Order: sequence, then structure tokens, then C-alpha cells
Amino acid sequence: MTPGIIHGVGLGPGAQDLMSVRADRLVRGARHIAFFRKAGRSGQARRIVDGMLRADATEFAMEYPVTTEIATTDPSYNAHLSGFYADCARHLAKLSEAGEDVVVLCEGDPFFYGSFMHLHSRLTGIVPVRVVPGMTGMSGAWTATDTPITWGDDVLTVLTATLPEADLVRRIRDTDALVVMKIGRHLDKLRRAVAAAGREEGAWLVEHAAMPDQRVTRLCDADRVAPYFSILLIHGQGRRP
Amino acid sequence: MTPGIIHGVGLGPGAQDLMSVRADRLVRGARHIAFFRKAGRSGQARRIVDGMLRADATEFAMEYPVTTEIATTDPSYNAHLSGFYADCARHLAKLSEAGEDVVVLCEGDPFFYGSFMHLHSRLTGIVPVRVVPGMTGMSGAWTATDTPITWGDDVLTVLTATLPEADLVRRIRDTDALVVMKIGRHLDKLRRAVAAAGREEGAWLVEHAAMPDQRVTRLCDADRVAPYFSILLIHGQGRRP
Repeated sequence: MTPGIIHGVGLGPGAQDLMSVRADRLVRGARHIAFFRKAGRSGQARRIVDGMLRADATEFAMEYPVTTEIATTDPSYNAHLSGFYADCARHLAKLSEAGEDVVVLCEGDPFFYGSFMHLHSRLTGIVPVRVVPGMTGMSGAWTATDTPITWGDDVLTVLTATLPEADLVRRIRDTDALVVMKIGRHLDKLRRAVAAAGREEGAWLVEHAAMPDQRVTRLCDADRVAPYFSILLIHGQGRRP
Repeated sequence: MTPGIIHGVGLGPGAQDLMSVRADRLVRGARHIAFFRKAGRSGQARRIVDGMLRADATEFAMEYPVTTEIATTDPSYNAHLSGFYADCARHLAKLSEAGEDVVVLCEGDPFFYGSFMHLHSRLTGIVPVRVVPGMTGMSGAWTATDTPITWGDDVLTVLTATLPEADLVRRIRDTDALVVMKIGRHLDKLRRAVAAAGREEGAWLVEHAAMPDQRVTRLCDADRVAPYFSILLIHGQGRRP
């Protein structure tokens, strides 16, 4: 029996037609799909492919045992997630060993802060794994602002808002262009860091980029809490002939 | 007469099927396409869409008056390019005013170190301009290494190899994950900077990512000169449950 292929497929920022042609073909043809989601939610990756799946597609929802209930620095956070990823990987490996291909749906690009990486590292060398890169959420975000992110020799720094405030301040001060991911409940801290770095004037918050409820706000006008899929941007001001 | 739309269309890293579904439709349907190229070359963006264009498509090749013959710090560099971009923008504006849509082909993502930005800034407010984001070349590059670029709270820094050597050293030392673009003739300088930052061990050079001649090399094994479409990567080592 030829083992099936586990495809980690980048879906892009959210609009179906921003998926790559390769991803579109794989998603529409898949007999088995798998995707991560928070328990009790439909899951962002699954929502993106609504209406694209074969009628006989088998769906495997991988529900995180914890998301924000435990701090990422707590050792039990890693223990919970590690067991979870191992279970998911075992399930996918069994499908592959039965000759079935599986499309694992990934928001954005699978190798850029994605959960699929934790399956990829566990499956590589065991069963065939292939990755289809995707358009990143940040490309969707800066396109939503209708303004280029980097010009000429601009330095771009990508941070997660989960970093300590002092690190955020130092790095936001020291870059031309900025992208901040994983904002959610860290918005207040991030706002203070942007202000302390003297960069509030040019900071934008993009929520649900490339989706029907896309929203672009100046950081100083933003609400107190941002949805998980929000991205903060400061555009570079480099050389422009 | 309704003015035509100037579409800046991201083509992604190079493989036709890594283009978005939206880009694919626009390229295949276009009556007018435009693209940048170095004089005497076919042009990378144009090569990506080989075989996809309508038989009656009109092509407008925008040939850079200078590329690497003049230093970017020389005032005549900006003067040359500024006049060139103004001419191109005028031509596209005329097509739009005649009611014609135009697809401007852009490698990677148009708002990420792209030349289309110089047309976008000149055309916005004059004629309708729309941008289709694309998969960045760096997504193609890290996928080529089959290794995730960022995990957990990793900081990603994106640099251009055109920066002064001391800046490169400082920033390469101070990041978790690294992407360096615009390498070409700066490879020797970049190699020295990576070594001075103590990061040579984990540095990879990816040439022509997602194209038939894709090549992944450890930096220490790389040739002396890299093609323009090469990207240097250092992968992050962040939290992985």
C-alpha cells in the first residue's frame, strides 16, 4: 500500500480567491480534511473553505485542549499541547498508512507562526508530508491599508504582542516598518509600547484582513480588545524615487 | 466613459499554481498587461505568466533605465528612476482614461519591496487602482527549506543586503529568525556580516524559490555571487510544545 500524503495547505488571509491555485485544487479534491479550532468554535481555517469541500469529505477537527486559559510560560501549557499534537499526528499517520491523502487547512502560511508546524515536525520521516505555502495574513493586512509596507532598504520587524513590554518598546523604536501578530488581549500593552517608542502616529490596526468584516483603524482610535486575527502595522518610509 | 482599473497583481514566488485564484483570473482575462524588466531581459514577472495570456493581449514592457549601474545613493539614480516611473504611470493612466483595464504583473507581493508601489503612489487619486496581494518570495524560500521560519514568540527581521555591513551585523545578531532580500552582488558583505554575528551555522541561501531551478544551499557552501532572486534565511528556534 502506498502511504497517503499529509498536505499542510496555506489558505491565505481569508478570502477564498486569495488562496493559491494549488491550494484551491487540493481543498476541492480532498477526501480527508483536518483543521485546528478552539473548542466550541467553527474554526477560522474551516470557515475559509466553506462551500468548497466535496460532499463526501471526511472532516477531522483538532480542538486545542487549551488556548489562553493557561499562560504559555506555565509548564502544564506545553504538556497539554504536546500530548494533543502527538494524538493528532498519530491520527493523521494512521490515515496516511491506510493510503489516504489528507489536506490540513492552515490559515495564512503554514510555516509562519502556524500550528501545522507541530504536526510537520512529528510526521516528517514517518509519512510523506508536503507543505503548500500561503499568502500571509500580514500581506492581507497591509493591502487592506492600501499602503506599501516596505520601500527601498526599509527594515521590517515582525513581532508577537505576547513579548514583554520592554522588548516591544525597544524593537518598535528600532525598526522602519513593523508588523505585530497575536494581539488579542495584549492590545493595551502593545498600545503603551507603541506610544513609548514614539510611533503612535503611524500605527494602524487591521482586523479580519481580506474578510467581509475587514476593518482598518488608526491605533489611537481602536477598541480596548482586538480580535485574534488582528495585525498592527507601521509602514516604512524608505527611498521612493 | 468609465475609466479602466489598473490592477497591481502579485504573482507569488514563481510557480504558476502558487498564484492566487484572483490573480490567475485577472492574468488570463487581461487585454492589457504591463511589467517591469531589465533592458535586454525577458523579465521575471513576464516569465511567470508564460502561456497564460490571451492571444490578443497587448504587452507593455517597462524597462528600467538603470538597475545596478548607478549607486542608489547617487542623486542621478533617483532622477533617472523618478522620470521613468512618471512616464510609465502616464501611459497606464492614458489606457485607463480610454476605458481599458490593465494588469500590472508583480513578482511576490506588490506592497513588499516591489516596483509597482512607485506607480501606485503616482496613480492613486488619478485613476482607479487596485492591488491583489501575492505570496511573498520569502514564503516560497522557507517552504523550499522544508523548515518553519517562526515558532511561538520568535522575532522575525527582514533586511535588504544593500544595508551597510555594520547595520547588518547588529541586526542579524539581535533577531531570532532572519530573512535577507536583494542579495546579488552583496553576498560577500552579507556572508561577513552573518559570520560576525555568529549565525553562520544556521544560515541558508535559497535561489529561485518555487521555480524549476530552485536551489537550497548552506550559506557556507554558497557561490561567491547569488542571483537577484536569492533569499537568505535563518530559522527561528522558538517554543515548540
